[in-house]
Amino acid sequence: MEQEPHLTESQPATPGTLRPGGRTAKVRRAVLDAARDALAETGFHALNMDRIAASAGVGKTTVYRRWGSPVGLVTDLLHDMAEQSLPASDTGSLAGDLRANAELVRATLTDPRMGAVFRAVISAAGCDEECARALAGFYRTRLDEWTPVVAKGAARGEIPAGTDPTELLRAVSAPLYYRFTVTHEEVTAGVAERAVTAALAAAKDGVFARS
Amino acid sequence: MEQEPHLTESQPATPGTLRPGGRTAKVRRAVLDAARDALAETGFHALNMDRIAASAGVGKTTVYRRWGSPVGLVTDLLHDMAEQSLPASDTGSLAGDLRANAELVRATLTDPRMGAVFRAVISAAGCDEECARALAGFYRTRLDEWTPVVAKGAARGEIPAGTDPTELLRAVSAPLYYRFTVTHEEVTAGVAERAVTAALAAAKDGVFARS
Repeated sequence: MEQEPHLTESQPATPGTLRPGGRTAKVRRAVLDAARDALAETGFHALNMDRIAASAGVGKTTVYRRWGSPVGLVTDLLHDMAEQSLPASDTGSLAGDLRANAELVRATLTDPRMGAVFRAVISAAGCDEECARALAGFYRTRLDEWTPVVAKGAARGEIPAGTDPTELLRAVSAPLYYRFTVTHEEVTAGVAERAVTAALAAAKDGVFARS
Repeated sequence: MEQEPHLTESQPATPGTLRPGGRTAKVRRAVLDAARDALAETGFHALNMDRIAASAGVGKTTVYRRWGSPVGLVTDLLHDMAEQSLPASDTGSLAGDLRANAELVRATLTDPRMGAVFRAVISAAGCDEECARALAGFYRTRLDEWTPVVAKGAARGEIPAGTDPTELLRAVSAPLYYRFTVTHEEVTAGVAERAVTAALAAAKDGVFARS
């Protein structure tokens, strides 16, 4: 059998004392962390399963058996990122919460490491259907987490009742991602602030009314 | 010397009668058309210079000498697409012009062939700096072509004087591209219409005032 160098070393030697759940979760964590690092460093198309196994300290056969391919790794990484997604803000005003949301997106995209990871997964989704579905799922989770913020804003009378929360949240993110993925222009704090102000102006005007 | 099968056949045999400009332009057209088709069919990472040369009916050495690499091909294709970019609409109202703009973006992204080409070049730009610069240049050209539309709208009093034309135009495109590249949601006519209405509401509110 193949050796699983680092992780095995930190586990008790007696099989009976292993907690399979704990071990499985540890292996997944190590592999997904290594995959994320590799994505940031080399992008999707240079992703190498053997190197990821080596830097995760996990046996190659485990990685191949469990994730199958770079697409499988990216897909699982996106599921993991969705699970770990930060909860929505609650600043007391819709403008404040949307500002926090835009700032979170901006900080992520401009962070050298996380920006590179997002660039890689977006690029992967552009050439693979399974990655595209996983990326769409990630953003559905993210958007769903933030929809209560919009409902609370509507309840406080800050925007019309019946505003479609997801439409408003998409309007906040879109100008940031457009620059990041399409026009390759800088995603500044001003860009984030303007995205919020523009989306709020449109929402107050009833543009995002649920159809 | 390598043969350049198809194009050479349609050229006169006597060197003195060749117009180098015409021939150069024809070779470029054939190669860029083949590159665009290949991008639509296989994406950026499977781009094969030899196959492109063959389907363009141009010698391999010509293609390697002139474009060097798939990145060189995509970069030149983006320059070409910028040159061929359609002129802006003039419907008589800013809302009408922006609607025409959004509809043009929507039609392009949802066209099976052109949508695939844009997906491929956006993906290429996500992993190569030279492609990213060429893509940014393409969108600068596109945006510059449409800025007079905004100036005319401001002159007609439809939006505040001093509205930043590029910011307003970016706001129209962003929700469409965000769905296309990031969330992989459908870019419907309703999405395009809402993008225009939202951008106009924000513009009227002074959100895109030049800073």
